[in-house]
Amino acid sequence: MPLCDDAATVISGFSNVPPQVRGHVRDLRIRWALEEIGRDYRLDLIDAMAPRSGEYRQWQPFGQVPAFDDGEIRMFESGAILLYLGEQDPHLLPTAPQARWQAITWLFAAGNSVEPALAHLNGLDLFFAQEPWAEQARPGAVKQARRKLASLQKALGERAWLAGPFSIADVLMVTVLRLLDHTDILAEFPALAAYKARGEDRPAFARALAEQLEAYVAPTGE
Amino acid sequence: MPLCDDAATVISGFSNVPPQVRGHVRDLRIRWALEEIGRDYRLDLIDAMAPRSGEYRQWQPFGQVPAFDDGEIRMFESGAILLYLGEQDPHLLPTAPQARWQAITWLFAAGNSVEPALAHLNGLDLFFAQEPWAEQARPGAVKQARRKLASLQKALGERAWLAGPFSIADVLMVTVLRLLDHTDILAEFPALAAYKARGEDRPAFARALAEQLEAYVAPTGE
Repeated sequence: MPLCDDAATVISGFSNVPPQVRGHVRDLRIRWALEEIGRDYRLDLIDAMAPRSGEYRQWQPFGQVPAFDDGEIRMFESGAILLYLGEQDPHLLPTAPQARWQAITWLFAAGNSVEPALAHLNGLDLFFAQEPWAEQARPGAVKQARRKLASLQKALGERAWLAGPFSIADVLMVTVLRLLDHTDILAEFPALAAYKARGEDRPAFARALAEQLEAYVAPTGE
Repeated sequence: MPLCDDAATVISGFSNVPPQVRGHVRDLRIRWALEEIGRDYRLDLIDAMAPRSGEYRQWQPFGQVPAFDDGEIRMFESGAILLYLGEQDPHLLPTAPQARWQAITWLFAAGNSVEPALAHLNGLDLFFAQEPWAEQARPGAVKQARRKLASLQKALGERAWLAGPFSIADVLMVTVLRLLDHTDILAEFPALAAYKARGEDRPAFARALAEQLEAYVAPTGE
C-alpha cells in the first residue's frame, strides 16, 4: 500500500472535482507510476473550486495538479515528474540509449502531439457543450483527433508498448487516450483500444485510480 | 557556421510553408539549440504541401517536423530533442540536480501548459479566421492565453531565464511565446515581452531564424 502518511514523497491533488473529470485528473499519472515501482507517497489535497494560495503557486505556478516534492527535488508538470521517476527505476524507463530516447520521445509525443487534440475535443464536449460555436467547431476537432489516433495506431504497430517494455511513455499515453472515454472514437482504432485496456488492466493503474477516486470527499452525483 | 553538408547531425524541416507560419516552424527550436552549442548540422527538407512518404513517417509518425538523427540516436518531438541536446552540453541544461529538474519542469511547462493555449489562439486567428465559430470562440481563447501568461510572468519574476542560466526551457518557451506575434497580447505582460526579446536577441537565435527562412524556396508573398 504505497499511500503512507509519513512518506517522504508528496504529490498534490484535488480534494474535489466535478463528476465529469473524476478519474481523469493528472495526479493519476504520478500515482500510477509510483504504484508501479512500489514507492510510498502521500497526497497534499487542495480544493479545486477555491482560489489557489500564494504558497501553492510557489510550488505550481499555474495552480494545476500535480506538483511533486520528494525532499530532494521540488518540481511540477506530470511529464517532467514521470521522467524524474523514470530515471530512478528501469521499470519505468529503459536505460539502453536508443530505447531510453524512444521512450522519452513518446513521452513528449503523448503530451505535445496527442494530448492537445484530444483535450480540445474533451473540452468542447464536457465544458463548452452549451455554446453554439462548440457544436460548429466539433467536426474539425473530431477530424484532428482521428488523424492523431490513426498516426499513433500505425506507429504502435504490433507492439504491446510504445518503447518496447512498459514505460513512462505508456503511463502518459494511456491517460491521454482516456480523454476520449466520453466518446466512441477510440473503438475505431482497435489496436489503440486494446493498448489502452492493457494499461488500465495493470494492477498499479487500478490501485492508483481507486485511490484517486477515494480521495474525493464530495458526492459524485453519479 | 553550423550548417554543414556533411554533418553527422540531421534534422528535418520544410522546404516551403505558408507565409503566416514562416519563422515559426518547430525545426527553429532545434536549429537554435544547435547554434548555441556550435554543433554542425544539416537539414533534410521535405515538402510541407505534399503527402509524407512512408519512409518519413517511420522517422516522424505524425508527419511533422522536426525529426532528428545524429547517427547514434534517432528520435522526434522538439521537446525531447532539446532534452537530448541539453544532456550533452551544460550550456543548454544545468547539471546540478535541482537546477536541472527546474529546467526540465519548465521545458514540459512550455510545451504542455503554455503552448496548447497559445497555439489554439494562433490557429483560430491564422487558419480558421473565416469560420463564424472561430470568432465566437476567440474571447475564451484570449482569456485562457492571458491567464497562462499572467501565471508565467509571475513565475518568471525578476529572473532573466526560467531556470537560472539560459537553458533548453528558454529555447522552447521563447519560441512558444512567438505564437502570439500576430497579436498585441504579449505587450500586456512587459516582463514576458522583455524575456522573449532577450531570447530573440541572442546571436544563435538570429542565425537559426535566418537559416530557416533562407531554406524556403517559394516566394513568401510578403
